[in-house]
Amino acid sequence: MKEVVPFLTKSVFKNIYLPINFLNGFSVSTLMKKPSTQLLSSISRRFLATTTSLKMPGYKVLALDTLNPNVKTMEYAVRGPLVIRAVELEKELAQGAQKPYKNVIKANIGDAHAMGQKPITFIRQVLACVAYPELLQNGDMPSDVKEHAKAILGSCGGGSTGAYSQSTGIEIVRQHVAKFIEHRDGVPADSENICLSGGASESIRNVLKLFINRDGKKAGIMIPIPQYPLYSASIEEFNLGQVGYYLDEDNNWGLDPDELRRSYAESKDKYEMKAIVIINPGNPTGQVLSKENIEKIIKFAHEHKLMILADEVYQDNIYGEGCAFYSFKKVLTNMGEPYSKIELASFHSVSKGYMGECGMRGGYVEFVNVDPAVYVQYKKMISAKLCSTTLGQAVIDCVVNPPKEGDPSYDQWLTEKNEVLKSLKERATLVKEAYSNIEGISVNPVQGAMYAFPKIELPQKAIEKAKSLGQAPDFFYAMRLLEETGICIVPGSGFGQRDGTYHFRTTILPQPELMKDMLERFERFQTNFLKENS
Amino acid sequence: MKEVVPFLTKSVFKNIYLPINFLNGFSVSTLMKKPSTQLLSSISRRFLATTTSLKMPGYKVLALDTLNPNVKTMEYAVRGPLVIRAVELEKELAQGAQKPYKNVIKANIGDAHAMGQKPITFIRQVLACVAYPELLQNGDMPSDVKEHAKAILGSCGGGSTGAYSQSTGIEIVRQHVAKFIEHRDGVPADSENICLSGGASESIRNVLKLFINRDGKKAGIMIPIPQYPLYSASIEEFNLGQVGYYLDEDNNWGLDPDELRRSYAESKDKYEMKAIVIINPGNPTGQVLSKENIEKIIKFAHEHKLMILADEVYQDNIYGEGCAFYSFKKVLTNMGEPYSKIELASFHSVSKGYMGECGMRGGYVEFVNVDPAVYVQYKKMISAKLCSTTLGQAVIDCVVNPPKEGDPSYDQWLTEKNEVLKSLKERATLVKEAYSNIEGISVNPVQGAMYAFPKIELPQKAIEKAKSLGQAPDFFYAMRLLEETGICIVPGSGFGQRDGTYHFRTTILPQPELMKDMLERFERFQTNFLKENS
Repeated sequence: MKEVVPFLTKSVFKNIYLPINFLNGFSVSTLMKKPSTQLLSSISRRFLATTTSLKMPGYKVLALDTLNPNVKTMEYAVRGPLVIRAVELEKELAQGAQKPYKNVIKANIGDAHAMGQKPITFIRQVLACVAYPELLQNGDMPSDVKEHAKAILGSCGGGSTGAYSQSTGIEIVRQHVAKFIEHRDGVPADSENICLSGGASESIRNVLKLFINRDGKKAGIMIPIPQYPLYSASIEEFNLGQVGYYLDEDNNWGLDPDELRRSYAESKDKYEMKAIVIINPGNPTGQVLSKENIEKIIKFAHEHKLMILADEVYQDNIYGEGCAFYSFKKVLTNMGEPYSKIELASFHSVSKGYMGECGMRGGYVEFVNVDPAVYVQYKKMISAKLCSTTLGQAVIDCVVNPPKEGDPSYDQWLTEKNEVLKSLKERATLVKEAYSNIEGISVNPVQGAMYAFPKIELPQKAIEKAKSLGQAPDFFYAMRLLEETGICIVPGSGFGQRDGTYHFRTTILPQPELMKDMLERFERFQTNFLKENS
Repeated sequence: MKEVVPFLTKSVFKNIYLPINFLNGFSVSTLMKKPSTQLLSSISRRFLATTTSLKMPGYKVLALDTLNPNVKTMEYAVRGPLVIRAVELEKELAQGAQKPYKNVIKANIGDAHAMGQKPITFIRQVLACVAYPELLQNGDMPSDVKEHAKAILGSCGGGSTGAYSQSTGIEIVRQHVAKFIEHRDGVPADSENICLSGGASESIRNVLKLFINRDGKKAGIMIPIPQYPLYSASIEEFNLGQVGYYLDEDNNWGLDPDELRRSYAESKDKYEMKAIVIINPGNPTGQVLSKENIEKIIKFAHEHKLMILADEVYQDNIYGEGCAFYSFKKVLTNMGEPYSKIELASFHSVSKGYMGECGMRGGYVEFVNVDPAVYVQYKKMISAKLCSTTLGQAVIDCVVNPPKEGDPSYDQWLTEKNEVLKSLKERATLVKEAYSNIEGISVNPVQGAMYAFPKIELPQKAIEKAKSLGQAPDFFYAMRLLEETGICIVPGSGFGQRDGTYHFRTTILPQPELMKDMLERFERFQTNFLKENS
């Protein structure tokens, strides 16, 4: 018992995960109000009684005080206590609980299918055929789907997606990725420099691992603030040094080279500065960088000998008038020497874009200008995990090598793709307009990606309430919003924000009807919240 | 250029990976003979010319001397230079090169489908349906397949496998895993203690990460020698302390508690001893532990306060007369207190067994008796990677929840399963008998798993030849075998072996005809090899 109570007390107030079934019946909002010793004790009893694994023996090899310290300190806000509470609310509603709303809206995570987006037929047909090749005999499947599936199977060991692929991925898929990049950038690409992975996340984490340093200063990795918390979490887990540079909210979340210089100068003595992460289009901020902005970043990276890690997973999600996606590879190559020789890792994924195939876990990294000896070590490192999912790799193939004009699947594919992108664009506009009209909220245009990152002007009274509960003010706000409206968003503190400012990230993924519903609920909540706290 | 040559020189002799396309046209066997400066220089030129990424700029952020030191020192022999050479030989044969053999036999990796094993129809039908739910309208799919697929889809966000699952996995799949374990062991299991992952490898690595310690002594992890190199590679990558205990070759690769005590005593001052890894059935050694042997190991773990990591991925692969699989969970639970309270992580996978679905990347870990606070941290840690592939999770579901008697798919499923297991059993016997009859080779029975680990008596002359080339003698032997017969095996040095002994790991996976062919080639080679080196 002794071991559990301090952990609980700590975790409740530190936004650390709690197992869902353990919280059943206890309201998170109750827990957030400094739970009494009696309550904690009752929770602990339940915790201990729940499962066989929870009996406390005489000793624990793995206990909080001996656990990997970096695991303890890492945080990943996109799946934090708000989400756990949201799942709980869903279960309560399903059991007939009376709430002022009928459903929970999970606007916390870029998970398009979970929010009702339909899969692209072509992708799923190819997947079905490579999973169950008997379908190749089936008259219902379009001929180009079958050809596509046969090509993938022909590049699999024993002609089966059940065989391991090379650790870098199925050869033909990597070749198609290279062609896709060449076509996108007008710059040569070599399939040998491309490694497929289980989502972009796996590649990003693998690349960050290369910078781990056992002795001396930690490697400094520059990341945007606000950022996608995969970066802060992995940097913390790997014991690297996080060096934040602020995006300029007043300038549409643009990237100011002076701010890069300030950030670098402040950290260069503490860390061995190694790399800069750019997320373009931005997550959580939704900006799309201009070519000129990218050129300035590349010059900065060259000036300070930094490797560039370009998170370009939202490259298909461009909505802003006059905005276009420029890959870092294209821009640095076109700048010529010395910039064309900068080390770059560029990441892409099947989870976003128009396909939204998050659960399939397909992604890749392209290495540019990386030392061959280092690349050999990288490939050795990933080989211990054998390979990423071959079916995820098949989805990558469909994304980089879609139906061509004249193919039987082309028209349907194009229609489905365009419909998704058109609808996302409409919702991007809707979100911007709606939040701009809500008192106390301001928001930049959503030029790209799948998120808005609105700023909330929190009344002093609300800030004080939050502090009295030991909560971050934006967490307090988000939890109130969830409890009262069923809308699940992520507080800005999970992504980073300038001190004294408060934000939240919301996706633009709820389908149009639900989106309108969400914005109406939000507006009502905000009106009441301001009234209550003024 | 300067950067490349020393790396090459080093890597050629240290079994480090070389990129395949870079070696094209150079024979590995030539390279193995201390390449001349001229040859290295010619290789380096080609290396530099091959791709755009290989131009050397004025500086490299990531270079061998600044790279994560643990990445440099880790090794993973199952996918080493022999495999690269095997792929090269396949390409040469395809281009019409004249060799004394017509095909390369990859007996290096437990990759059943790559060696011609056919997928289980039920698994692939369910996969096709969850990937492309329009097939649920299809009259061709058996009704139980459809029910199975619907249940999985019903537990996915938005009813789509394209949605992220919970980080621990799709809820219904975890429930089915728990039921499967309960049925197997006759001991309660709770789905909340089960985390699905991309193959067992991912779970194993995640659990090992918990032991990372920044200050003080490294955590000591006991592993068998010989072992599956995922363990040695991950322990090295995570900067943990590898503590080997020898399996007893003279006693059918059994596990002698006295040897555990010796190993522990020798390392307990150097490391903070934390955990013991058991692979049962054994990889690469093929033994199946008896219940009594497992009890002794559990007592040892309790005596020394070690967590048990039980790699049980071959639990369906039991061939030996009188052998049976006992899970560590079942045995320790039935032993009662205090043993029933030992911390345990047990791993399982869809890559082995009768299904051999390696490319699907499905696996899980069950935690038993783990501190709830630690488990919360574990779940937080894995959440940053979002989730494992939902389609891989669907395969797990099929494995733990197969058709029941009376279901439309039952007969075919049972027939296919039994045929695979019967054939594997026959090949296990064949391999034992065949190698036992080859001069200079001895081998234990293959009681389980998918491998034999025969001992080779290498003539002194061969050992000296190898040493003169700067090669491990068993590596020299394996490379000669590959070049002369097309058979790809892994030298024992990749798994660990007692000093002065030489072994290799071969799978029992080539289909019966190919297996006979392989054994004949092997015998001819060995006869010649002994003649040449006597």
